[in-house]
Amino acid sequence: MALPGEFQLIQRFTRPFLAGEGVRAGIGDDAAVLRPPPGHDLVATVDAVVEGVHFDGTFSPEEVGWKALAVNLSDLAAMGARPLWALVALAAPSTADLRWLERVGRGIAGCARRHRTSVVGGNVTAASQTSLTVTVMGAVRRGRALLRSGARQGDLLVVSGTLGDAALGLTPGAAPSLRDRQRRPRPRLALGQGAVGIARAAIDISDGLLQDLGHLCDASGTGARVEIDWLPLSRAYRKATKGRADPHEEALSGGEDYELLLAVPPARLQSLREVALRAGLAVAVIGEVESKPGIRVVKGGGSLRRPGRAGHDHFRSGRVLGPGRRRA
Amino acid sequence: MALPGEFQLIQRFTRPFLAGEGVRAGIGDDAAVLRPPPGHDLVATVDAVVEGVHFDGTFSPEEVGWKALAVNLSDLAAMGARPLWALVALAAPSTADLRWLERVGRGIAGCARRHRTSVVGGNVTAASQTSLTVTVMGAVRRGRALLRSGARQGDLLVVSGTLGDAALGLTPGAAPSLRDRQRRPRPRLALGQGAVGIARAAIDISDGLLQDLGHLCDASGTGARVEIDWLPLSRAYRKATKGRADPHEEALSGGEDYELLLAVPPARLQSLREVALRAGLAVAVIGEVESKPGIRVVKGGGSLRRPGRAGHDHFRSGRVLGPGRRRA
Repeated sequence: MALPGEFQLIQRFTRPFLAGEGVRAGIGDDAAVLRPPPGHDLVATVDAVVEGVHFDGTFSPEEVGWKALAVNLSDLAAMGARPLWALVALAAPSTADLRWLERVGRGIAGCARRHRTSVVGGNVTAASQTSLTVTVMGAVRRGRALLRSGARQGDLLVVSGTLGDAALGLTPGAAPSLRDRQRRPRPRLALGQGAVGIARAAIDISDGLLQDLGHLCDASGTGARVEIDWLPLSRAYRKATKGRADPHEEALSGGEDYELLLAVPPARLQSLREVALRAGLAVAVIGEVESKPGIRVVKGGGSLRRPGRAGHDHFRSGRVLGPGRRRA
Repeated sequence: MALPGEFQLIQRFTRPFLAGEGVRAGIGDDAAVLRPPPGHDLVATVDAVVEGVHFDGTFSPEEVGWKALAVNLSDLAAMGARPLWALVALAAPSTADLRWLERVGRGIAGCARRHRTSVVGGNVTAASQTSLTVTVMGAVRRGRALLRSGARQGDLLVVSGTLGDAALGLTPGAAPSLRDRQRRPRPRLALGQGAVGIARAAIDISDGLLQDLGHLCDASGTGARVEIDWLPLSRAYRKATKGRADPHEEALSGGEDYELLLAVPPARLQSLREVALRAGLAVAVIGEVESKPGIRVVKGGGSLRRPGRAGHDHFRSGRVLGPGRRRA
């Protein structure tokens, strides 16, 4: 039987998605019926990737799909949550290429499989611009979620991986490893889950270190000091920024790295390092939480600059490709 | 302090949203932390309203916001679930009028308050076209969700309210009551929740009676017979369609009524009527579930037509204003 266009689209789009843990009814009813694990809180967030804003024609459809889910899973990682379920809302022109959309679906499914997330429902609608709005739900032991607001004076600031790579990955001729950081963000789920009970506060670095550190400090009622020479930079980053007057710009303010920033009491640093090691991830101390409000970027003790609230604000800047993500 | 544009937007947009039941952490962290009620399944769904597809310049911003949430709550109603939480993803041009968006926020908040739903998070992103993608989560007693797949031969088909009004509400010069049905859909939550344990299957009528009945029958492995003279039509509907060759077109195939269609064993019809009465809602028997596949629309026993799969498919039809909703 020939299916009408939209049903065919849905079929193609949903074929790679398989239901998993706690799914009583998934795709195909008015809503999904889900059974949250007992003794846990539910952690839920939504995020969108929009054509021309978060991806462009240089992204493969699989990369678009991967990124749409991964940026959401990164928020779960920052809460210390284990992913369970995702809902995917697709908006696309009625002229959209079904094969392209099918490959987007495969990208979502690849990321979902990798991180044990079931796509349990969604929505398809016509729109002039292609976008994917993904909702993810996860679980964290009751009352144990990592909030932004728990940081205290004297906590060490720790980041995972390396900073600034994703922003550099947007420049023409960027090294493959930098391009990959932009296109296939890796949510730091094992680190976030392992940091529960160790870190006092966490946030994922989606809008740039300084801006996200600012959010964490605002929520905690603290300030912070960042030692610029301690920022973890990849070899490709150092090569790409060699000789520049301000080689730290992307590491401080570039978005979309999707690393975790954690506030950790000094006595628990070793425990965090062990968790990171098990997750196969490097972590670096980059500074300290201070009682005085504001973020101070220093070099060997001397203050370098006092950024107000650096990082991206695409509604102001009109920048086309870039983070443009913000919790409402 | 002058806020950057996007933060100001978020502030305006989120001001009317208050946290409620089971919300451990809401707007302002990487994700919301939620505590589902014990002994219940979680019911979750996502839906989008897009400028030029689901609303246009004749909608007030409050109506846009109301509709964005209401169409989602209607899906919860169809599952028999009680709403708990919503996540709202807004996409808007960087030139968007902040006052307009604030009023959209008020429309969402009005619908949320009316139906005891907490807006616990969201996302703001730039896009060329304004849209709202809303995720709602609700609760239903464990294992008791109303699915589409439970209908059995001999069940009566029952619909709430009246049919076709929302579609007629799109025509120029439509009566205020019809326009209101298009702009301010009322999710039938009390009826849906009351129908748990009474109805065997349910779906909300978003794409038109015949299409949604088709979904219910497909999921249940049944067919159905609809008596055209039994369709509940409002006074305004009858007036607007008077003298037309096919006065039942919108009642059969018009979308966006957001009434409930239920399959009810005859012995439980009185119980359902009592639930509807308590909900202040009329219900009408419109036909019967049959074992033979396909939908038969009859008049006094004689077959009128055999629609294949009527209703809207905007990816095919290119129709601009209209439902365009479909579960993925």
